[in-house]
Amino acid sequence: MLWRDIVRIREQSPLVHNITNYVVMNTTANALLAVGASPVMAHAIEEVEAMVGLARALVLNIGTLSGPWIESMLRAGREARRRGIPVVLDPVGSGATALRTATAVRLLEETAPTIVRGNASEIASLAGAQGATKGVDSTRASEATLDAARALAGRWHCVVSISGPVDFIVSESAVLRVENGHPMMPRVTGLGCTASALTGAFAAVNPSPLEAAAHAMALMGIAGELAGELSPGPGSFQVHFLDALYRIGESDVRDRLKLSPA
Amino acid sequence: MLWRDIVRIREQSPLVHNITNYVVMNTTANALLAVGASPVMAHAIEEVEAMVGLARALVLNIGTLSGPWIESMLRAGREARRRGIPVVLDPVGSGATALRTATAVRLLEETAPTIVRGNASEIASLAGAQGATKGVDSTRASEATLDAARALAGRWHCVVSISGPVDFIVSESAVLRVENGHPMMPRVTGLGCTASALTGAFAAVNPSPLEAAAHAMALMGIAGELAGELSPGPGSFQVHFLDALYRIGESDVRDRLKLSPA
Amino acid sequence: MLWRDIVRIREQSPLVHNITNYVVMNTTANALLAVGASPVMAHAIEEVEAMVGLARALVLNIGTLSGPWIESMLRAGREARRRGIPVVLDPVGSGATALRTATAVRLLEETAPTIVRGNASEIASLAGAQGATKGVDSTRASEATLDAARALAGRWHCVVSISGPVDFIVSESAVLRVENGHPMMPRVTGLGCTASALTGAFAAVNPSPLEAAAHAMALMGIAGELAGELSPGPGSFQVHFLDALYRIGESDVRDRLKLSPA
Repeated sequence: MLWRDIVRIREQSPLVHNITNYVVMNTTANALLAVGASPVMAHAIEEVEAMVGLARALVLNIGTLSGPWIESMLRAGREARRRGIPVVLDPVGSGATALRTATAVRLLEETAPTIVRGNASEIASLAGAQGATKGVDSTRASEATLDAARALAGRWHCVVSISGPVDFIVSESAVLRVENGHPMMPRVTGLGCTASALTGAFAAVNPSPLEAAAHAMALMGIAGELAGELSPGPGSFQVHFLDALYRIGESDVRDRLKLSPA
Repeated sequence: MLWRDIVRIREQSPLVHNITNYVVMNTTANALLAVGASPVMAHAIEEVEAMVGLARALVLNIGTLSGPWIESMLRAGREARRRGIPVVLDPVGSGATALRTATAVRLLEETAPTIVRGNASEIASLAGAQGATKGVDSTRASEATLDAARALAGRWHCVVSISGPVDFIVSESAVLRVENGHPMMPRVTGLGCTASALTGAFAAVNPSPLEAAAHAMALMGIAGELAGELSPGPGSFQVHFLDALYRIGESDVRDRLKLSPA
Repeated sequence: MLWRDIVRIREQSPLVHNITNYVVMNTTANALLAVGASPVMAHAIEEVEAMVGLARALVLNIGTLSGPWIESMLRAGREARRRGIPVVLDPVGSGATALRTATAVRLLEETAPTIVRGNASEIASLAGAQGATKGVDSTRASEATLDAARALAGRWHCVVSISGPVDFIVSESAVLRVENGHPMMPRVTGLGCTASALTGAFAAVNPSPLEAAAHAMALMGIAGELAGELSPGPGSFQVHFLDALYRIGESDVRDRLKLSPA
């Protein structure tokens, strides 16, 4: 139940620890606040384990990675795993450069993420499929992508959440699809990263990674629809999107939700 | 006189040097520009002393601290002290991790800030009171917090500015309260950091740290009220808040200011 | 033809690799997306050469420089030069500190930028003119500035794009002027950096650096006029500016463009 999880986030205000990229720190913190969660951004190697200990979810995002940040992500991820705190990995740009692919694979191996959320080319690159990404844009999920996601979910015992015009959420035994969204969303930087941050918030309040990942994508899509209807362009879209996350009500969910088995 | 200080900022456009966190660099620069000041963000150890030499206030904010940034903050802070330039310290998350508390204390000891601006739990942690913070959210200021602030102000000969539903500004000999503000403000990331940046702008034009700190909080609160009345959610709030900082007039100050001895 | 270049950017969606400052990463990525380009931000020394190899333009911006970032800028710039990919240099704050001036000069020498885009005091400092900047604000371009730009263009065989109330674009053999713009633009942080990012997008689709630089400034100015007419302050200006970049049409260009030989 998406609405029940939204209410839980608003009531519990779970602390979500993000080690993320410079481009989206402000907007993902604002999205977490708007939906009712408590964001914290902290990357110093000296404090990431302590900060994970205060958090109910950890989000790792390699969008502007560098050596020291990779070390901190590994350390935070291992601590989260040890404590049983859900980890969301966003492998931004995996497949675009060797550093990104290798870092994403290493984070998979060493931190055992609960949920991996990316676009089709990132997921394909992780699964060892052909995997060529053009920057960090999203690409249409295809059958090949679903196969890649199933392989990834099976090998790493994680849920794979693929964003695109239709989102697919893939576990070892199930596939869900979310058809909410708005065509202006790819024209706003960092909405994929925002999806990963919100996935962390849902994982903090719902013990099913499959449901948590699907609910985050559904909320993104519904808020995107509400924002898109008010927005002449991507500048106003970002503003209305945060407002929609803050204001979304049970009737919006009831009237708009398009979440189904794939 | 709050209005007089706003006019001074607009006329003099003081350069405010910020060494601050990644989350708020854009929004605090925009807030400083909107009110009429000139922001600069610079953190390289090789240039912070030169940049301080051009500035009329220095703002140190540990929101996304790491080793090299701490060194730069210390170096910049010592240079500001040597030159008699006011220093504002925002001890973001002090109390949440040992690194943050230790860094905030070290900055207190080595840079002798003119004004320390934080939320109640950060101030309490600095004063050695119980001090447990949940992330970087604000907590209601209590009598215990005021005692902590008085202790801090007495020990470090600084002004302590505590943000919350009611703001308290505490010097060694006086306590002021500001009752302006809007309930949506905690749902926008970095407005506490914005308060610290604006405190730097006021300290640049007003030699009384108590007045400068109080005027910054009052302007934040009045702009927050003006923005809140126009905003269905936190996305539009951020936009209207910057507009309000830019447009605020003498009648807004006259009609709305709630600044009084505590 | 400005409109032809806008259409090319929208159709080709060129990947623009930015190594830029923390303050503007979000807003410059959003501006590139709004106009139709594909932004990527990547600074790790291990991947900048690989990322340049995927890009059609490279933008180097020293707004929050530090040692490791300078090394990455140099490496990326050399690779772009080797591959014949256009490089845009934004020497933010050159003249304000010795580190910035020296870094900007070193980037000029070692990466041979196609276009240098800055404000008058930055350009003057690079040309060895008096060059004293107050923070990173823009200053009115004067005859002395044009002389400095001509000297720079001649020595480094680059185009120099100077932003101000009137923009001047200077090559070894020509000077253009752009008179579009809006007085609120200096009150929004990072619009100069946005101009540099858009200059990269135009350089990706137009082989004439003079035209590319002039078209970027003209688009900035026209979008600024469209935004300014709707905006009571700088918060809403930023929103409407992104919307304008996204929505701008052939008639806006035809009716408003003020681009002429100087």
